[in-house]
Amino acid sequence: MHAITIPEPGGPEALVWAEVPDPVPGEGEVLVEVVAGAVNRADLLQRQGFYNPPPGASPYPGLECSGRIAGIGPGVSGWSVGDEVCALLAGGGYAQKVAVPAGQLLPVPEGIDLRSAAALPEVACTVWSNVFMISHLRPGETLLVHGGSSGIGTMAVQLAKAVGARVAVTAGTKEKLDRCAELGADILVNYREQDFVEELKQATDGAGADVILDNMGAKYLDRNVRALAVNGRLAIIGMQGGVKAELNIGALLTKRAAISATSLRARPLTEKTAIVAAVREHVWPLLAAGHVRPVVDSEFPMSDAAAAHRVVEESGHVGKVLLVVP
Amino acid sequence: MHAITIPEPGGPEALVWAEVPDPVPGEGEVLVEVVAGAVNRADLLQRQGFYNPPPGASPYPGLECSGRIAGIGPGVSGWSVGDEVCALLAGGGYAQKVAVPAGQLLPVPEGIDLRSAAALPEVACTVWSNVFMISHLRPGETLLVHGGSSGIGTMAVQLAKAVGARVAVTAGTKEKLDRCAELGADILVNYREQDFVEELKQATDGAGADVILDNMGAKYLDRNVRALAVNGRLAIIGMQGGVKAELNIGALLTKRAAISATSLRARPLTEKTAIVAAVREHVWPLLAAGHVRPVVDSEFPMSDAAAAHRVVEESGHVGKVLLVVP
Repeated sequence: MHAITIPEPGGPEALVWAEVPDPVPGEGEVLVEVVAGAVNRADLLQRQGFYNPPPGASPYPGLECSGRIAGIGPGVSGWSVGDEVCALLAGGGYAQKVAVPAGQLLPVPEGIDLRSAAALPEVACTVWSNVFMISHLRPGETLLVHGGSSGIGTMAVQLAKAVGARVAVTAGTKEKLDRCAELGADILVNYREQDFVEELKQATDGAGADVILDNMGAKYLDRNVRALAVNGRLAIIGMQGGVKAELNIGALLTKRAAISATSLRARPLTEKTAIVAAVREHVWPLLAAGHVRPVVDSEFPMSDAAAAHRVVEESGHVGKVLLVVP
Repeated sequence: MHAITIPEPGGPEALVWAEVPDPVPGEGEVLVEVVAGAVNRADLLQRQGFYNPPPGASPYPGLECSGRIAGIGPGVSGWSVGDEVCALLAGGGYAQKVAVPAGQLLPVPEGIDLRSAAALPEVACTVWSNVFMISHLRPGETLLVHGGSSGIGTMAVQLAKAVGARVAVTAGTKEKLDRCAELGADILVNYREQDFVEELKQATDGAGADVILDNMGAKYLDRNVRALAVNGRLAIIGMQGGVKAELNIGALLTKRAAISATSLRARPLTEKTAIVAAVREHVWPLLAAGHVRPVVDSEFPMSDAAAAHRVVEESGHVGKVLLVVP
């Protein structure tokens, strides 16, 4: 088969479409013939040599895909060759075939085309596990989503609205904020022109956000704590703004607030299986009902993954950038 | 009645036993004739003028007491005059009488004398809400308790052992560590001589603590994050080591860990009522069965609360210091 390989870490041109051996599904795994993959920021870090795959994972990038089951390993039940699926991966999605633990498979949701389904696993699992399983966003509460027009952001806005929460987003342009509003966002903050702490306070009668989904890390830590409501929960899933920052424990304690920080990729199989099962139970019906849609910015041939990475690096996109197997 | 008043904030001598008007139980409250109160660190801060009572609370110090119900306000059911109780208070426990919301009352546990019951409400509610309701300590997990010989510490050690967890404690003397061992602590760390991060790693095959109950705040933040296991939870309930410190978000994210910070006193009535109900359901049977005991260091006449404050300020005590109504 062909896969995107990284002979030497570097810029987008480091991604090389090359012939490699086919993967073989092990115990509890299925082989998926990939129709499409999607780009995640972690792929950009892996390309640059900053994010090595966890032990046992495929050496090729790609944390999610859609496709058809082409083979079944020992000990797998409930799936058949030919099933149309999408999957959460520990790696290897930038390839024509990938071996996947059965617990990380999802059926293609009703009403969603097979290709677009590649846009769903990472964002659905990341948002559901952080905003709902860890931070327990409840109907009537306010969620602040940083980077509201990103893949994660567009899913977070839709899911939070679908469960009856109020949603605030930050983004860097009016166009991106308009897209967030179309998806249901109630409070729009242009972070280049406005202070999100101030805007959240004003929009919530001084209360602040009950849950914040943050991809910035250090740069936003103090402001996120200030923007939290009493009993607020800050869920950090990225560190695009750095790794270390001063925490005002006194402010956190006065608000009886909590901070969690997670990544999906390094979780053990049992945890991923539990998250995927919860997503199938809670998110898939919302997709089937049309309350939540995959948001696809653009598609590139997988062999030209470099072009897709350039789009994500320039951050002009809204939603997910797909890689379609040629 | 008499109560401890604070005419001018200051040292222990600022506490003055004086005649004051009797409290009147309002809607949903009962009047308790106090037999004993207990000292909490927050009382020391209040005495120094650093911790004002929340709006609506009694101006006198005292966050817990035991005694007998002497009057019932409108809208209270399930309690009768003469019932022996202990109670979580928003203030006013250093007094002969106190008005208490019925949701913050607990019966005196079977087998515990009325006076010693004053040692229970704050520590049982603080430990249960933080270690179990927020941080979900599970059987087989490891809990690290800083200040293991404090009132909070001695309750945390006993409760965690009672539910089948492994317990590590820090304390500053061999005598205090010996008392923690008698209560069931498995891993003893003298913080004056040993590095708790290193000791925890050694005692857990490198895994670290699943839950940490911390009263130090800033001073221990970085070390606490380093001592956490994967999926670990740090529960901060005090800031004796300062308010602001650098947080390594990267380390937190790699461990998929969480930090919470809470105080009990400022919580609204509904939350206190829920915590008290959970304590009655989960902790009271352990007291009745003798698996958990109140740990009382010493008793002073309430009129000499200053002497009790000096004992707590010198930190030589183990467990709780009681104030007995003369």
